[in-house]
Amino acid sequence: MTAYDALIDHVRQTRALSTAAGILSWDQEVMMPEKGAPARAEQMGALEAAVHTRRTDGRVADLLADAGAEKIDRSPAEAANLRLIAHETKRASRIPADLAQAIAKKTAIAQGVWAKARATNDVPLFLPHLEEIVALRREEAAAVHEGDGPLYDALLDVYEPGMTVAQLQPLLEGLRPRLTALREAIAAKSDAQPNFSGTSNKDGQMTLAHKVAEITGYNFTAGRLDLSVHPFSSGSNNDVRITTRVDEANPMGCLYSTIHELGHALYEQGLPADLEGQPAGASVSMGVHESQSRLWENQIGRSAQFCTHLYPLAKEHLGAMGLGDAQAFHRAVNRVETGFIRTEADEVHYNLHVLLRFELERDLIGGDLEVADLEEAWNTRFERDFGLAVPDPAHGLLQDVHWSVGLFGYFPTYSLGNIYAAQLNEALRAAVPDLDAQLARGETGAVLSWLRENVHTKASVNEPGAIVENASSQKLSSEPLLTYLETKYATLFGI
Amino acid sequence: MTAYDALIDHVRQTRALSTAAGILSWDQEVMMPEKGAPARAEQMGALEAAVHTRRTDGRVADLLADAGAEKIDRSPAEAANLRLIAHETKRASRIPADLAQAIAKKTAIAQGVWAKARATNDVPLFLPHLEEIVALRREEAAAVHEGDGPLYDALLDVYEPGMTVAQLQPLLEGLRPRLTALREAIAAKSDAQPNFSGTSNKDGQMTLAHKVAEITGYNFTAGRLDLSVHPFSSGSNNDVRITTRVDEANPMGCLYSTIHELGHALYEQGLPADLEGQPAGASVSMGVHESQSRLWENQIGRSAQFCTHLYPLAKEHLGAMGLGDAQAFHRAVNRVETGFIRTEADEVHYNLHVLLRFELERDLIGGDLEVADLEEAWNTRFERDFGLAVPDPAHGLLQDVHWSVGLFGYFPTYSLGNIYAAQLNEALRAAVPDLDAQLARGETGAVLSWLRENVHTKASVNEPGAIVENASSQKLSSEPLLTYLETKYATLFGI
Repeated sequence: MTAYDALIDHVRQTRALSTAAGILSWDQEVMMPEKGAPARAEQMGALEAAVHTRRTDGRVADLLADAGAEKIDRSPAEAANLRLIAHETKRASRIPADLAQAIAKKTAIAQGVWAKARATNDVPLFLPHLEEIVALRREEAAAVHEGDGPLYDALLDVYEPGMTVAQLQPLLEGLRPRLTALREAIAAKSDAQPNFSGTSNKDGQMTLAHKVAEITGYNFTAGRLDLSVHPFSSGSNNDVRITTRVDEANPMGCLYSTIHELGHALYEQGLPADLEGQPAGASVSMGVHESQSRLWENQIGRSAQFCTHLYPLAKEHLGAMGLGDAQAFHRAVNRVETGFIRTEADEVHYNLHVLLRFELERDLIGGDLEVADLEEAWNTRFERDFGLAVPDPAHGLLQDVHWSVGLFGYFPTYSLGNIYAAQLNEALRAAVPDLDAQLARGETGAVLSWLRENVHTKASVNEPGAIVENASSQKLSSEPLLTYLETKYATLFGI
Repeated sequence: MTAYDALIDHVRQTRALSTAAGILSWDQEVMMPEKGAPARAEQMGALEAAVHTRRTDGRVADLLADAGAEKIDRSPAEAANLRLIAHETKRASRIPADLAQAIAKKTAIAQGVWAKARATNDVPLFLPHLEEIVALRREEAAAVHEGDGPLYDALLDVYEPGMTVAQLQPLLEGLRPRLTALREAIAAKSDAQPNFSGTSNKDGQMTLAHKVAEITGYNFTAGRLDLSVHPFSSGSNNDVRITTRVDEANPMGCLYSTIHELGHALYEQGLPADLEGQPAGASVSMGVHESQSRLWENQIGRSAQFCTHLYPLAKEHLGAMGLGDAQAFHRAVNRVETGFIRTEADEVHYNLHVLLRFELERDLIGGDLEVADLEEAWNTRFERDFGLAVPDPAHGLLQDVHWSVGLFGYFPTYSLGNIYAAQLNEALRAAVPDLDAQLARGETGAVLSWLRENVHTKASVNEPGAIVENASSQKLSSEPLLTYLETKYATLFGI
């Protein structure tokens, strides 16, 4: 056995422990009896320890060195495996064990404090914990940081390998002026927006969710669809699982959450079988993942043409919804309304929410903003971008769990996902000129085929930016997203 | 931290990996998408390897020695922890790694061969594999064996700690003459047995299963009830899961499988919370486990009094079943019929099936019977004990999966379970004189309380035999089981 093969075996087995933990997490949200939580926490801790032991095993570095010395021509996937394993091993070796433990411990506590603080609008309760978390993750960033860029680059790299502030900032900040202008133009026409009324029961919503899953090509012999409090997707390859939620008063929540998670799930089901279990065979980044969910949810799922197919299906399973025809349905699922909560935001506002968070967390990690000044900074910027005063911290600084669990560098991947999705959508539509006609007939096979070929099967053989640039035959740019949004809402609102 | 505490921490974490594997096994049978099997096999292998690494870690032996040297008074539970960990560590250290691997590899292959052999009645296909398995498990037994008894003792000890052939054989063989006589006496009256007719749908069967679970005191905040191909129970303490099966033409299969698995599950839910995760806090043996399932299934679930409560419930959810009253229901769930298949056997025949297997496997391991002569030995003994000629191997030697996966020493625990159950039932009824009246009202709280106090909370602090003897205030004996069966069927059949 070559050193390379031994290395891949080692890494595969480590990954099997991680994916086992993934099944346990899914089980915890979907199946576990309520009293099972303490035992589950012990199981997750034991798995994490076993994974850590294997990752930091000196054998990995030895095998990497031996594999590097082997005189064998490597395929692109093999070269990617070596690159990815070396990158992770270096990172793991540079983070002191006591720092990793301190982060795990602190965030476990802070998440509970955050939940309490949000429920009681108690910012001072949460800020001391946030301060410690920022300090710990700055310490981590400093330990692994390379190059001349800001510390924040080292955190960004965890979720979007290869991405830097230098590349990200212009992409994101380019969005603000035109999104703000679009928001204002739509606000002036807001009486033109129809809305849903009435309720629809759980069975109807779940039947529709299953039908939509089948339409998109989700493979139920390699996947599941269940209910949970917050929708999520997990797993990969031949065991992918998505969840959705049911709110009888808001059937569109179930429908579009399902389509969003299906986008994630189709990506995971489309990863190359011959690289299963290898680093090069995994999904490549949070941003590319989000591009898949957003493309299916928005560019496909909220398109006028797909809505003409969805409307009669929705009517059959959800009832009349107070909407007279497919056009009204299409307008209702594309309502634009300024609000405080990111997760409820429409396509126009969503990236403004992300921009706000990106700039604040970049400044926190960069040392340009103190945690003590965070709430004021949030509220000031929010009013500037959204034209509304934040009424309380639960609708402002305290709304998201992310910072309490140490996720810095993660928020921007949501907007990168939207940017990537718009680039991919342009290329998809160029490759499939009659896509609109297909979507109107409920045929999405061409979408899946194109994504399979250009994104899914690429897995992690290249870096995320390169995958999107190759697939879309253009450099990363926010222009396709802005053009898509401006064109769409111009048609919808006559602006 | 004392060496004892460090040892318990280590063992708890190892056990958390094992219980994680238990959740994955449950998931595999109940939830996993069909294509998930290969990835699941990798996860299970990785977990097994992680468990093995921790079990054979030299630190365990060091901590055991250090804990033994600590001048601290140990509680009975602490002493049991040390005894159980020492026992397992010694056993693990004596089994060479390549032997353990050979057994795992051989049985994984043989299980598939057995399934094929059973489907095609092809004994010669299976026997060479069985021969290797017998040789491997003999080698394992020889490596760990202690004392003057036969090799088989070392295998028995895995499933029923402390049990020996010297103690087991008289218990089991004492059953044969009186069971055979009972079987013949009933056969002479077999026209007196009513039977179910008609079908009942899945929803009705599952609703009844849930209701019966609630009657027994199964805690759904610490447990689940789902469907699977073969009913089983898994988990412990606050995350216990049972499954049942639905056959529309045989609603009693679902009902009594559920009650059987509930017996296992109530035991696991009743283990002492303060010893959770420790060896002394686990269920004590396969035999005691089976005593719980069989006591609930038979001594409670098939009793005339509980049947008077079950009948109207069953009628409500399953339909009329072709049975006029509770008495007919009681007679129907206690039908006696000679058959070839162990898993379908009634209370009279069940132990005769086990006896046959015990004697054969004892002789195989002892070297007194060759694998080549096994089929003839099976068929000869079957005809002697059951009065019927085995029609084909699928109804004979090839019916059970056990030997193909290396389970030697396991079969007797089924009969031990029945023997223990009858002893416990005698003591329970002495302690709760009006139990019959309670059961007729559907009240089983006294049963659960008595089992909690006398069996469940004892966990593994003592050896299984001692737990049953203490709970029943008598030595292990097959007399209570024989008396129970003879009395029951005398009443039912007027013999």
